Amino acid sequence: MRDHGGNIDAAIARHGGADWIDLSTGINRRPYPVPALPASVWHGLPTRQAQNALVAAAAQAWGADPRLAGLALGGAQAAIQLVPHALPTAGRHARVLSPSYNEHAACLRAAGWNVSDSASPENMTGADLAVVVNPNNPDGRYWQPEDLLALAGKVGFLVVDESFADVMPQLSLLSCGGGVPNLLILRSFGKFYGLAGLRLGFAFGSGQMIAKLAEMAGPWPVSGGAITVGCHALRDVPWAHAMRAQLSADAIRADNLARKAGWRCLGGTDLFRLYHTANATEARDQLAKHRIWSRIFPYSAHWLRLGLPGPETEWDRLERALTSA
Amino acid sequence: MRDHGGNIDAAIARHGGADWIDLSTGINRRPYPVPALPASVWHGLPTRQAQNALVAAAAQAWGADPRLAGLALGGAQAAIQLVPHALPTAGRHARVLSPSYNEHAACLRAAGWNVSDSASPENMTGADLAVVVNPNNPDGRYWQPEDLLALAGKVGFLVVDESFADVMPQLSLLSCGGGVPNLLILRSFGKFYGLAGLRLGFAFGSGQMIAKLAEMAGPWPVSGGAITVGCHALRDVPWAHAMRAQLSADAIRADNLARKAGWRCLGGTDLFRLYHTANATEARDQLAKHRIWSRIFPYSAHWLRLGLPGPETEWDRLERALTSA
Repeated sequence: MRDHGGNIDAAIARHGGADWIDLSTGINRRPYPVPALPASVWHGLPTRQAQNALVAAAAQAWGADPRLAGLALGGAQAAIQLVPHALPTAGRHARVLSPSYNEHAACLRAAGWNVSDSASPENMTGADLAVVVNPNNPDGRYWQPEDLLALAGKVGFLVVDESFADVMPQLSLLSCGGGVPNLLILRSFGKFYGLAGLRLGFAFGSGQMIAKLAEMAGPWPVSGGAITVGCHALRDVPWAHAMRAQLSADAIRADNLARKAGWRCLGGTDLFRLYHTANATEARDQLAKHRIWSRIFPYSAHWLRLGLPGPETEWDRLERALTSA
Repeated sequence: MRDHGGNIDAAIARHGGADWIDLSTGINRRPYPVPALPASVWHGLPTRQAQNALVAAAAQAWGADPRLAGLALGGAQAAIQLVPHALPTAGRHARVLSPSYNEHAACLRAAGWNVSDSASPENMTGADLAVVVNPNNPDGRYWQPEDLLALAGKVGFLVVDESFADVMPQLSLLSCGGGVPNLLILRSFGKFYGLAGLRLGFAFGSGQMIAKLAEMAGPWPVSGGAITVGCHALRDVPWAHAMRAQLSADAIRADNLARKAGWRCLGGTDLFRLYHTANATEARDQLAKHRIWSRIFPYSAHWLRLGLPGPETEWDRLERALTSA
């Protein structure tokens, strides 16, 4: 089991207590209100028509170039699992942005790829496969679409993981990445919509690549509930607009609180913040005393990543935790 | 897209109409009553603890040997997708029971395996990989556990797909297959429990094989809803007992109706029946006139597979359809 956020059972096992606030991920804690689901969404196999409607709703919500084919999967993670097996086996050297979401490099290595870390896309020229997370997790670094399109011309294949792009839509390659045969764009549904337990994500790319992924994922990769909720939420444009504004304000609010604890913001997105602390382990334990779970990293003694609280009671507790040291 | 049951949108596109009764699959139309789900099951990532509890509930429900490791996946289909990539790449000749569920052979071929059909397990000796569906779909043929354990000793690796074994629990290798290192047992949740839209299934096998599949499936392969509903349903022993009796009676009832149409039962399980008809296409179209969707097969001019109706209104319509020709 690799190191991940969202392992709230580990927090409970380590520190005890219940009613934890899990800020160890970038999953929005102001979730989309799940509509009442008729029992029938669970009964039959999801139809092809329903799956196509879901992909169409995602393409519409994110302004995808109509030349891009799309596929719904059980989370962006499901796409990350398939990518290493979907690409031609000749030429197996991958360059992966680092530090970043650790599953990309790990899944490639598990499938037999030779993987090198790259500090930025500029160092990826000539790779058989390049993987960029944009905006990046955990540091929030980001690259402009034109620069990534240029990178696609200099590598064998380019995967851009846009799991956090809902809060920076101007960065997305979905609107301009059509017609680029060696590009795959991954999107998460659960993070911005706060519904990670639904297991829904998407891949967009050439018809050929999407057909290959679909063959590997099988005929029914997402649940009937994910289709129904996903369609509903992705078509709710006003909610998404309002949520972007809310999260933008929340990010500033979190930074202001963190400053009181002496933490310096190193970056992040409007779904999570990365702070420089004097001692990351101590900072995490300080929050844990208040049953707030955060994320630290094996490669840094100072970094602490913090998701954003939702309800006011959570903000109150975070403020107490940050000012009681 | 391969030929499958459950493609009710194809029926609607071809014949028009709404309110179809989909008997083209073996999915129970007397579904387990889905409990009210708190919205929180959709919010966070499923914890390791919750996933372990689900596997434990399945192992308990099916009497699994404690030496077997287990893994929850997005349907038995998800396991079928992974198997071809999880086995060592040396020695790539698979023997697959035929006729049977067509995804086994197709997924193996798509992953580069050399696949031969076998009419029965007796013809599989010496294969690098043998795949048996027990009881088999669509013909209901079945093999005793001891015979399949013996087969495991004569092949490189044995996959037994027990997707329909809930109605023939005495056939399952789960209680006696512990300690066999080259055996993988697949189980469906959605068929017997009538909740195919939930996307839930299981794989049981050696610790090493299950760890490999878990690595390929990623840390969160099933939804929070699937975990909650799955735990609830799998622990409901009285429901399963009563449902087995109900489906057994339903199968006899369906055979009696089919006889009125001049169809002869060739086999099946208590979740679907296989009939010999004078002309399968005409028989399917006769049912379709009454908005009942059934399954015929590209390899047979006579076979028609029929799931079992649930509510009395469905039985009434099936009787009208079968007696109005």
